[in-house]
Amino acid sequence: MAAEMAEQPGVLAGLIDRWDRLVEAVRSVRPEPLAGIVIIARGSSDHAGVYGRYALEIAAGRPVSLAAPSIHTLYRAEVLYRDHLAIAVSQSGRTPEIVTVLARLRAAGARAVAITNEASSPLAEAAEVVVDLRAGEERAVPATKTFTAQVAAFALLAEALGRVPWTRAELATLPEAVAAALSDTSHPEAVASDIGDRESLIAAGRGYLYSAALEAALKLKETTSIHAEGYSSADLRHGPIAVVGAGFPVVAFVAPGPTAADMTELVGTLRRRGARVYVVAAAQAADLPVPETPEPLMPIPAAVRSQQVAHALAVLRGLDPDEPPGLTKITPTV
Amino acid sequence: MAAEMAEQPGVLAGLIDRWDRLVEAVRSVRPEPLAGIVIIARGSSDHAGVYGRYALEIAAGRPVSLAAPSIHTLYRAEVLYRDHLAIAVSQSGRTPEIVTVLARLRAAGARAVAITNEASSPLAEAAEVVVDLRAGEERAVPATKTFTAQVAAFALLAEALGRVPWTRAELATLPEAVAAALSDTSHPEAVASDIGDRESLIAAGRGYLYSAALEAALKLKETTSIHAEGYSSADLRHGPIAVVGAGFPVVAFVAPGPTAADMTELVGTLRRRGARVYVVAAAQAADLPVPETPEPLMPIPAAVRSQQVAHALAVLRGLDPDEPPGLTKITPTV
Repeated sequence: MAAEMAEQPGVLAGLIDRWDRLVEAVRSVRPEPLAGIVIIARGSSDHAGVYGRYALEIAAGRPVSLAAPSIHTLYRAEVLYRDHLAIAVSQSGRTPEIVTVLARLRAAGARAVAITNEASSPLAEAAEVVVDLRAGEERAVPATKTFTAQVAAFALLAEALGRVPWTRAELATLPEAVAAALSDTSHPEAVASDIGDRESLIAAGRGYLYSAALEAALKLKETTSIHAEGYSSADLRHGPIAVVGAGFPVVAFVAPGPTAADMTELVGTLRRRGARVYVVAAAQAADLPVPETPEPLMPIPAAVRSQQVAHALAVLRGLDPDEPPGLTKITPTV
Repeated sequence: MAAEMAEQPGVLAGLIDRWDRLVEAVRSVRPEPLAGIVIIARGSSDHAGVYGRYALEIAAGRPVSLAAPSIHTLYRAEVLYRDHLAIAVSQSGRTPEIVTVLARLRAAGARAVAITNEASSPLAEAAEVVVDLRAGEERAVPATKTFTAQVAAFALLAEALGRVPWTRAELATLPEAVAAALSDTSHPEAVASDIGDRESLIAAGRGYLYSAALEAALKLKETTSIHAEGYSSADLRHGPIAVVGAGFPVVAFVAPGPTAADMTELVGTLRRRGARVYVVAAAQAADLPVPETPEPLMPIPAAVRSQQVAHALAVLRGLDPDEPPGLTKITPTV
């Protein structure tokens, strides 16, 4: 897992090198008119899809949904997806339900894009255009380099389908920002040490960073079996905050921009409940500082921070983060 | 909470009495053509929305999405919702972000329906058609009668917008099925007693019953502060199952039909990991038996079962289920 985390700056740089060609390829399958967009994924890929949901709806100005696969694989509903763009995401390109849903949506009228690490997988074959991550073989069960590459791929799709709230120059700083985060292991180790033997944790973010909160929770679950759950700040307030008592650990992603006031208020509320809040933010005083990055791209370095905490906590607990008990690299759900 | 749970058969019967008129009202605002449907909600209402997502996509044969409110309230994105039907769900009709999002989507071209318990609320005023639940005042913080009425309202919307996989006669049995579930408190008390002082729990379902799993987790969180999390069986397998070790409590919703094999397989996997699995199913041998109900309507009696467990566990722990610490009835998220 640590070796694959270290490859992230290179994987992102490789994707940025091929950016323009991939943007053109995606544009070639953009439906005209474009009625809506649907994203098909599970697990880590689904969390990248949550990022895509925000990035694409905001950039393309069209409704975006996350597919409910069973509607297609188990209930076999006839749903009209004319004028829709379907985007399927899978590291291996071999999860059966993801391939099936993309094929069914294409048959129902959608144009089809795959984001995958395996350019000759069944998923790639089911798509019209492939955003080939070229992240290299991923052996550790918890996806790391694939996740950040998938998020970058959605940023690419946003650019292909609309107007994006970042510049090419800002995009180009991502490999360096990730490398800077990776070079500091002391902050994540301190957070892991403070979490110690707690059995529950919540990760919270909003907007673009909701995806980082979901992924942080999943990495912690996979590597340490801690019951970590990801929430948007608004959903957390609608009941689940009842779980947070004195000493309860919360990882909070705080970005500049439209969500800042909401997240800052949440951090205050959580601290008044006695929670131990670990803030991920572009500030040296943060528990997990990330290099300055525009809010819509911050999920990438922020995700690296939570990978580091997950890895450090696994090591601290004497666990092998590469092979969590009872998990396999490809999950054959239908 | 117990008093409001007991009102559920009457609330459902009242809604069924007004069914045809409400179906006609919803049909009057169905866009022609209908490109897609979007549901706007938070908390318990959002879990009813997850039910709606399945029921409406299958019945109407159009893509359905759950709105990400911050895209509209915080990022103020311009998104084209022409030919879409927007459905906002809120017990009080007073959560600011829900009202704002419905108004913005309507301005962006969508037709607007509200599902609410308050026919003269700001949300009702922002809509063209109101599905008025008439569940009566809800005082306990954990929503119960409102949730089952909201699920029934989505069944009504499914009938208004397409072809539904249940008959009127089956629908008419719902009040009786809920009353039968409510009359048996011994099964939920036995499950609560077995959960005892565990601090974590997972609830799992698939398809229509995924909503029941999400809502079960939220009721348990709100009433007892247990860290309960709801999952679809497929999502649970993609990593989070790492949390489930020996003795870990899991509430599993098992229905006949297309999801049965998948859920049965999951129950076996969980038991091999040593989990204590409590099965909610239409079988006398189930830990939480529910009366025979077609799968697409089963979330209603199944939700009642988890309300009972949440209530029993709160009482067992000496807590007041009506007023969980630090929660309020209306959550003013933006």
